[in-house]
Amino acid sequence: MTKPAFLDSLDAQLDWQREFYKDLHRNPELSLEEHRTKERITAELTDLGLEPQGISDTGLVAVIENGHGPTVLARADIDALPVTEDTGLDYASEVDGVMHACGHDMHAAALLGAVRLLNENRDAWSGTYIALFQPAEENAAGAKAMIDDGLTSKIPTPDVALAQHVMPMPVGKIFTAAGPVMSAGDSVKITVFGRGAHGSMPHLSVDPVVIAASIVLRLQTIVSRETDPGEFAVVTVGASNAGSKSNIIPDRAELLLNVRTYDTAVRERVIASIERIVRGECESAGAPKEPTFEYFDQFPLTDNSEAVNDTVTEALTEFFGTETVQEATPATASEDFSELPSAFGIPYSYWFVGSFDAEKYQAAEEAGTVLTDVPANHSPFFAPELDPTLEIATKAQVIGAFAYLGG
Amino acid sequence: MTKPAFLDSLDAQLDWQREFYKDLHRNPELSLEEHRTKERITAELTDLGLEPQGISDTGLVAVIENGHGPTVLARADIDALPVTEDTGLDYASEVDGVMHACGHDMHAAALLGAVRLLNENRDAWSGTYIALFQPAEENAAGAKAMIDDGLTSKIPTPDVALAQHVMPMPVGKIFTAAGPVMSAGDSVKITVFGRGAHGSMPHLSVDPVVIAASIVLRLQTIVSRETDPGEFAVVTVGASNAGSKSNIIPDRAELLLNVRTYDTAVRERVIASIERIVRGECESAGAPKEPTFEYFDQFPLTDNSEAVNDTVTEALTEFFGTETVQEATPATASEDFSELPSAFGIPYSYWFVGSFDAEKYQAAEEAGTVLTDVPANHSPFFAPELDPTLEIATKAQVIGAFAYLGG
Amino acid sequence: MTKPAFLDSLDAQLDWQREFYKDLHRNPELSLEEHRTKERITAELTDLGLEPQGISDTGLVAVIENGHGPTVLARADIDALPVTEDTGLDYASEVDGVMHACGHDMHAAALLGAVRLLNENRDAWSGTYIALFQPAEENAAGAKAMIDDGLTSKIPTPDVALAQHVMPMPVGKIFTAAGPVMSAGDSVKITVFGRGAHGSMPHLSVDPVVIAASIVLRLQTIVSRETDPGEFAVVTVGASNAGSKSNIIPDRAELLLNVRTYDTAVRERVIASIERIVRGECESAGAPKEPTFEYFDQFPLTDNSEAVNDTVTEALTEFFGTETVQEATPATASEDFSELPSAFGIPYSYWFVGSFDAEKYQAAEEAGTVLTDVPANHSPFFAPELDPTLEIATKAQVIGAFAYLGG
Amino acid sequence: MTKPAFLDSLDAQLDWQREFYKDLHRNPELSLEEHRTKERITAELTDLGLEPQGISDTGLVAVIENGHGPTVLARADIDALPVTEDTGLDYASEVDGVMHACGHDMHAAALLGAVRLLNENRDAWSGTYIALFQPAEENAAGAKAMIDDGLTSKIPTPDVALAQHVMPMPVGKIFTAAGPVMSAGDSVKITVFGRGAHGSMPHLSVDPVVIAASIVLRLQTIVSRETDPGEFAVVTVGASNAGSKSNIIPDRAELLLNVRTYDTAVRERVIASIERIVRGECESAGAPKEPTFEYFDQFPLTDNSEAVNDTVTEALTEFFGTETVQEATPATASEDFSELPSAFGIPYSYWFVGSFDAEKYQAAEEAGTVLTDVPANHSPFFAPELDPTLEIATKAQVIGAFAYLGG
Repeated sequence: MTKPAFLDSLDAQLDWQREFYKDLHRNPELSLEEHRTKERITAELTDLGLEPQGISDTGLVAVIENGHGPTVLARADIDALPVTEDTGLDYASEVDGVMHACGHDMHAAALLGAVRLLNENRDAWSGTYIALFQPAEENAAGAKAMIDDGLTSKIPTPDVALAQHVMPMPVGKIFTAAGPVMSAGDSVKITVFGRGAHGSMPHLSVDPVVIAASIVLRLQTIVSRETDPGEFAVVTVGASNAGSKSNIIPDRAELLLNVRTYDTAVRERVIASIERIVRGECESAGAPKEPTFEYFDQFPLTDNSEAVNDTVTEALTEFFGTETVQEATPATASEDFSELPSAFGIPYSYWFVGSFDAEKYQAAEEAGTVLTDVPANHSPFFAPELDPTLEIATKAQVIGAFAYLGG
Repeated sequence: MTKPAFLDSLDAQLDWQREFYKDLHRNPELSLEEHRTKERITAELTDLGLEPQGISDTGLVAVIENGHGPTVLARADIDALPVTEDTGLDYASEVDGVMHACGHDMHAAALLGAVRLLNENRDAWSGTYIALFQPAEENAAGAKAMIDDGLTSKIPTPDVALAQHVMPMPVGKIFTAAGPVMSAGDSVKITVFGRGAHGSMPHLSVDPVVIAASIVLRLQTIVSRETDPGEFAVVTVGASNAGSKSNIIPDRAELLLNVRTYDTAVRERVIASIERIVRGECESAGAPKEPTFEYFDQFPLTDNSEAVNDTVTEALTEFFGTETVQEATPATASEDFSELPSAFGIPYSYWFVGSFDAEKYQAAEEAGTVLTDVPANHSPFFAPELDPTLEIATKAQVIGAFAYLGG
Repeated sequence: MTKPAFLDSLDAQLDWQREFYKDLHRNPELSLEEHRTKERITAELTDLGLEPQGISDTGLVAVIENGHGPTVLARADIDALPVTEDTGLDYASEVDGVMHACGHDMHAAALLGAVRLLNENRDAWSGTYIALFQPAEENAAGAKAMIDDGLTSKIPTPDVALAQHVMPMPVGKIFTAAGPVMSAGDSVKITVFGRGAHGSMPHLSVDPVVIAASIVLRLQTIVSRETDPGEFAVVTVGASNAGSKSNIIPDRAELLLNVRTYDTAVRERVIASIERIVRGECESAGAPKEPTFEYFDQFPLTDNSEAVNDTVTEALTEFFGTETVQEATPATASEDFSELPSAFGIPYSYWFVGSFDAEKYQAAEEAGTVLTDVPANHSPFFAPELDPTLEIATKAQVIGAFAYLGG
Repeated sequence: MTKPAFLDSLDAQLDWQREFYKDLHRNPELSLEEHRTKERITAELTDLGLEPQGISDTGLVAVIENGHGPTVLARADIDALPVTEDTGLDYASEVDGVMHACGHDMHAAALLGAVRLLNENRDAWSGTYIALFQPAEENAAGAKAMIDDGLTSKIPTPDVALAQHVMPMPVGKIFTAAGPVMSAGDSVKITVFGRGAHGSMPHLSVDPVVIAASIVLRLQTIVSRETDPGEFAVVTVGASNAGSKSNIIPDRAELLLNVRTYDTAVRERVIASIERIVRGECESAGAPKEPTFEYFDQFPLTDNSEAVNDTVTEALTEFFGTETVQEATPATASEDFSELPSAFGIPYSYWFVGSFDAEKYQAAEEAGTVLTDVPANHSPFFAPELDPTLEIATKAQVIGAFAYLGG
């Protein structure tokens, strides 16, 4: 592989990428509602002379066909979260209760930069580059939506798929690994039923607030007692809601659970345990009605191809050095990215881009600010270092592709 | 006391009362929003030739001065609840999510009927009758609002105050008692603070969902372990809410509690225990911030005057017979009615009107409907028997007053 | 009724009673093991010239036939508890882990004193006096044992039965009431089954320690949520035991529960709820085996005859004055005394003797001792004031009987 | 390395080893009470012409000095557990409540066999072989006891230390790994204090049974919420004991916890969390006294030397083949073995010997026996397959040493 010398020209376009990033950050849109975001990306791609193609309501793809050679699909996700930003950044969200708290704006800005570099330096590579901007990663609906809208027949079949994600890891570093790097994720909405009554007459009720509380505590035992201590499993009750008045005992409670696993057998056992515990607690309370379980946001395992990861890691290491490119430990989060290569039946690799300056947060803390450690993804304080993260992520995007297209 | 012979004429006006009741039932209004209700009552009172006087935004009073004699204040409350009606009645609520689930429409209709009967039969009594239609009983704000708006200087000072409430007790019966008949009630909004994080990274969070669950279970011990088993105390968590997404651990949880007691020392101990438990559970979890406590909807004890109760009970018993008028056991619910007589420094009595036909519910259950026993106040199924409850409540209202005004 | 003038001679025998009391206190014996106690009582009664008759292994009766008149049975219980005394008294228990922590030694000493007074003053009364010393009240086995051993055929059938109990109430007072004065009591041993494993391999276990913990918390809701707040019910988990090593997960847990109620319907509902909760929690945990329930120590309700209570209360009040004899509030504890009158089909009354000096405990606390309030029955600190409790209890015992026998 | 040809003679001595194993199994002795066991081993070693040396009360060592070469220490533990055997074996424990439920009898029998083989074939190797029989592994007291008794000055300093453990893994296999293979283990006895009272008077108590239950449930969150899902941690409440009578609320509860970790930082955080939770729950309950924490049975991490493990694994693989010798996954259990090499400052390796036939247990289950899967260590059903486990363990013991001593 030759190094992509044209990366030297990245400096000239970084301000443009920074502005694009800040614009997305100021204007976050929830999953499947990325209309403005799609328009902005479409406009930029069109400005570059490309012909972006909408796939699904809010997703889009730009294909650069550039002679013989492999076909590489690079994917960035573009949706934001229902979080109220509390970073204090001058480009903080201007949309109430919505925030790019997972860095998808950085992914989009980096991919856009990579597209421009590759497009303006077609003589340096050959093959086909597909830039895919995917909506709705957060609820596992976006990759499916693009596939359902005919993705596999609308673009050339890639040989490999690549994606990256900013993480609360040291800024300036890139982390890669073969095998499972992101967990399988399952969400379930559980409704438990009691019997409503006046708050002063508990004996006429079956109190769903108490049932929900018991369930929450009992669910902890799935990880603490039922899972092999060396095995990975997370059961989070992200939401527990019941009632709206102090003096009315409600007739139901609703729990939203999220499960993360790295192994199919563990996943199935955890889900079975959730149902067993919920049913048992309802019986214990004498609930008048069976609980209900509605599964949603079900994410596949992200399981990097050893070959693709090796190729990408080697190229990144050659370019950035071994100080920068390090071995990733599997992340606890989940992704729907792998739905895309799965739809084509192709191998893939997915890597992490460090984007937080731990010292900054320690200094803030010493100065009396309440932050503790680096704010994780989905936190109201999530604020990746724009520089040099954007630059590194753009370069990584180019180099990963160039490992295949650079000849 | 002579019997109020004019009660024979009640039959002639009952259809009018029934229509008024159904109209209120179809058009329930939340506490402090009883504008339409106030207008309707005002219109009816004006039709009767009276000059109703608005006191506070949504309360009103009609005074019938009728010669020498005692002054009796009779009060009906008029607000509804944020409950979605599920009675299937043909006059069910037409307002989404709002329902007369506590029978205040019945109280208003009965008081209106009593006003008409007394007004049309002025020759049968002498003294002053004050019909007070009070808003916002449910949140303990209405009596206060009327007092704050100058109630005590806007109407004659009564000698006694009377009120009644429909209850899930056998229809056709009236229940009276001296001493405490309704509990003191206190509501408190508790916010506990954790640290938010991505649902897959619980180790970066302090999970407020778990804190809230522990608190809910631990609060049960205030009644089960800390209260003398012979003492009355209720601690209800009417609402427990945290989070909105399965995969985001929220940074706080909110609990709405309701406390009922019959004794000041017990009340203070229970409240102290709530705060101790909440603080202890927050410390147990390593919560990053102290919990907060905001008290609201604080209801006084309803403690019937022995003299007034005796007078009223004797009159009711003489009229209805001992089969109908029975000894009440104190109710677990609370009322802000006693704020009114307290503002005047006068004695009062408050009684219960049975309004449910248990057999009807048993039959429904045998027929496969899910109802269990009689639906209590604040239930979506709360449906007092219109007949003969309205008739009995109207008569009781008249007789209670007539015991003082009948000469 | 004439007053029993011979009570003036009580002073002369009080030292003898005190010594007897201290001797029993120093030598407590557990339920059904009261061999030494029985011997001591037998010896004293024989010294008085009576012919005590053993009934059941550790119970006994002395009958004084004294001409025509009613027959009165007076009962004292004599067993102690598995409590380690911590009173610091100079006559504290000399038996490791056993203590008269419920005052049965006082009951026996008072009854013995009454027997002597009545025996030595036969000319002052006529009829039959039966002094019954009952073993094993603490586990509800003693009255049954005496009945099973032929009590009803071995002694004359009494007209009334009387008993008394020292209580953590003000010393110098006696408390009486008609109707229910002591609750029904039920004990149950619950065994829940998990699966044992090495402590480091929780995933191979079903952890019964966690099941038991969940059950304990969930049981609180029977009183806090399922029982009418105005209704009396206690559910105590007096013992919860599982495992013996930190690193072995045991295969079962054992809970000992105690239930107190004043109403049969409540009692049955509470017991049904206990079983429902235990079964539900076992299912919730995936327990490999059904839990088991073994009921024991089942105490009847103590429900005083209105007539007997009136007679006794009148006699006590006449003698002691209204300052001393007051209305009792029902006690939360239980008794098997009523099994005895039930076996004969006769009415009975049971009263309380105050025996604690609250000021003493306050002073101790001010002085830095850890006591809080008066130590209740079954506490390691339970220490009735010997004087004047013994004197008053002896007099009460005589006066209660004299109300029937005094002519 | 040459293969130890003399292993062919193992067959001839296996019956002797089997008898020795069964004798130990029938006569298990608790930690630090292994007097009979020590005598038996001493007798056998003496029979072999060796001069065993007692070190500490119940430990012993046999040293075979055999010319120039490395010094290898091989260790077997010899203590049993307070478990009631339920295997039904014809050589089951004859000591009530004590059982070799962790296979130490197998370790001793295998080491004894290895000693005999090496002793009788001195011409096949050169160097020094130290067979160390260690008491009290189960409570982490035995290695310390031998070191405290001067182990390091009483025997030659070894170059490496070796040990092995039978495990509920497939019989016929050996499992080795470099790095951490056994966790650090900490036990703590926690006493929480309430206030005792009669079971019918919960309001006079602070109920320690409820406090303990809350603590048990809350402790689950240390693993489920506070520990990185990819990190190893176990918090087991092996024993939770409070009270002995249904109707006496006890004044304290005792919990025995066991903690397993693979990382010092995690270990410290877990222990801090335990103390925080226990203190918080005591405050939540209004406990009258601070809880106490007594740490015991604190086991070090077993962290195999990469070099030693490589040497041993290579030798085992060469002898047994790759089918038999496999990569171990770290075990959740703990060991005090590493105290011994730590005392000398030498590297070590520790491996696992599979000893269970899963099919046998499945067959038993199909036939209606209650066993589920293979019984883990410390289970009353723990029963390693005597054959061929004893043979393989003896060979492994010899080969591990021979890798150093075989020249």
